[in-house]
Amino acid sequence: MPSIQFDVLGLGNAIVDVISRTDDDFLAAQGLHKGAMTLIDEARAETLYKAMGPATIVSGGSAANTVIGMASLGCNAAFIGKLKADEAGNAFAHDIRSAKVAFSTPFAKDGPASGRCLVLVTPDGQRTMNTFLGACQNLSEADIDEEAIKQSAIVYLEGYLWDPPAAKAALARAAKIARAAERKVALSLSDSFCVDRYRDEFLGLIRSGSVQILFANESELHSLYQTADFDTAASQLRKENILGVVTRSERGSVVLTSGEVLAVPAFPVDQVVDTTGAGDLFAAGFLTGLIKNKSLETCARLGALAAAEIIQHIGARPLTDLGQLAAQNGLVL
Amino acid sequence: MPSIQFDVLGLGNAIVDVISRTDDDFLAAQGLHKGAMTLIDEARAETLYKAMGPATIVSGGSAANTVIGMASLGCNAAFIGKLKADEAGNAFAHDIRSAKVAFSTPFAKDGPASGRCLVLVTPDGQRTMNTFLGACQNLSEADIDEEAIKQSAIVYLEGYLWDPPAAKAALARAAKIARAAERKVALSLSDSFCVDRYRDEFLGLIRSGSVQILFANESELHSLYQTADFDTAASQLRKENILGVVTRSERGSVVLTSGEVLAVPAFPVDQVVDTTGAGDLFAAGFLTGLIKNKSLETCARLGALAAAEIIQHIGARPLTDLGQLAAQNGLVL
Repeated sequence: MPSIQFDVLGLGNAIVDVISRTDDDFLAAQGLHKGAMTLIDEARAETLYKAMGPATIVSGGSAANTVIGMASLGCNAAFIGKLKADEAGNAFAHDIRSAKVAFSTPFAKDGPASGRCLVLVTPDGQRTMNTFLGACQNLSEADIDEEAIKQSAIVYLEGYLWDPPAAKAALARAAKIARAAERKVALSLSDSFCVDRYRDEFLGLIRSGSVQILFANESELHSLYQTADFDTAASQLRKENILGVVTRSERGSVVLTSGEVLAVPAFPVDQVVDTTGAGDLFAAGFLTGLIKNKSLETCARLGALAAAEIIQHIGARPLTDLGQLAAQNGLVL
Repeated sequence: MPSIQFDVLGLGNAIVDVISRTDDDFLAAQGLHKGAMTLIDEARAETLYKAMGPATIVSGGSAANTVIGMASLGCNAAFIGKLKADEAGNAFAHDIRSAKVAFSTPFAKDGPASGRCLVLVTPDGQRTMNTFLGACQNLSEADIDEEAIKQSAIVYLEGYLWDPPAAKAALARAAKIARAAERKVALSLSDSFCVDRYRDEFLGLIRSGSVQILFANESELHSLYQTADFDTAASQLRKENILGVVTRSERGSVVLTSGEVLAVPAFPVDQVVDTTGAGDLFAAGFLTGLIKNKSLETCARLGALAAAEIIQHIGARPLTDLGQLAAQNGLVL
């Protein structure tokens, strides 16, 4: 078995977030589904951007946010995702590399511009996302770095990656390599509508033994098992015989295995500014705990702490050293 | 005399800020002068960007920040500044227009990319700026909208605008039109090294009656009169027979006229995150007070309030409605 080079390798859409504050009236006027991620085409992205207020531009992308959070917590991290060599693409590549995450996916030579997500943040801190996938649609099997996957303790897949159709072959290849090398594969369900689009594929991955760790929030879990009842969904997940981690916003998280149900509270915060990336950073903290051989409770507390940092400012990338933050809160890594 | 269409028209470098947190060691290693604005060429901008950490991209530019602050305080504002139609240029144009500032300077058809400022923020909240002027160098006389200037109560010039050489003719034209139309011209000294570069020109403008309102911070004032003593510099400024406004960071501001010296305290803040734009927003609050016929003390208090908002978050554009903030603090406009 090859030696471990990376604690985690994330595969995801390489996205730049364009974040603007707004109000519920604007969401209603634009026909947007609050709290959800909606796929939009380039023309719609232009119209919506024009209607939006002044924006802050920060690198994002769900799995990318997670691996950057893990790097900030002291893990060795890598990322695979597709960009074009435009200003947004160059900014994403700069940001992820300067966060000490290994990233070497070649830029797309042609095709659409780098992907971007128009994020609308309401005064309650909720984010409503509108994604133009752009160059993410060009992720292909050729972009899968076989050696990097073999040498990663955890391979982390975001559910959003099922949206760009050509990426599917790339994902299948990555999962196959990881499985053959006996690496752990983690999947984040990303969004309840995303689960709706790919429910059978996600369940197939779980039930075929391709996925060992599942991250979901409550609505994604409900969507996966098509029930409005949390306990019903939770007991279904426990039967899958994997490690399930469900986040419940201010009510904390629940870790579910076949033998255990562990509820861990959220980390208290003064003010929720922007929830973009809360789930991504929870996963970062949790997986770091696993890498460092911590108890499941400590894993969930690390997740809660990283999520608390991210929701107190604009953008889904940490603004403080999460390793130091963990130490200040008595969580020694 | 034409009627007033705009309360303020700002002329300045149209700049996108690329903001990254760093520490004093990085500034030292890069040979950067803490707290100052240094002009850099494109090659240096690339090298420095590569060495910098992950960044947040937000529209900036000194005079642009000021007029946006004034728009947020309920003034009718306009801006003249030069961009290219690249991603940064389009973002700047979007942001300023969606902040309800009239902006119609045509994009440069060729030449360098839109200007950008690499802003390094240290843990003390101080910002160190490195500006690649880019397309700002193409501002020319043809960009001066004569009617807009004639119809603006205040024409606001940033000192940084003296850096792009071709802009000088544009500035001279703007000042001449404003004077002929009996409009007030305000000048911000921008930076002590900038004052060093153009001291005689700035003093010439003041002494020829082209400028009626001067904004400076302490070090800029010291540089203007080449003295290290505040009282000496202040008494020199009082002899110029204009309205002088000097900001002194946490020690507040001093308003100086030939007949009056008025010290107004800073607005208390919990935590200084990023001082980028503090002076720009002080000017926004102060000029709004003048427009609304408030006392000089109220003008300075409005300036202090707007500056306090901007230094509590990353970026030099307000994240809250400054008009509402003023009302909440008993400053009725």
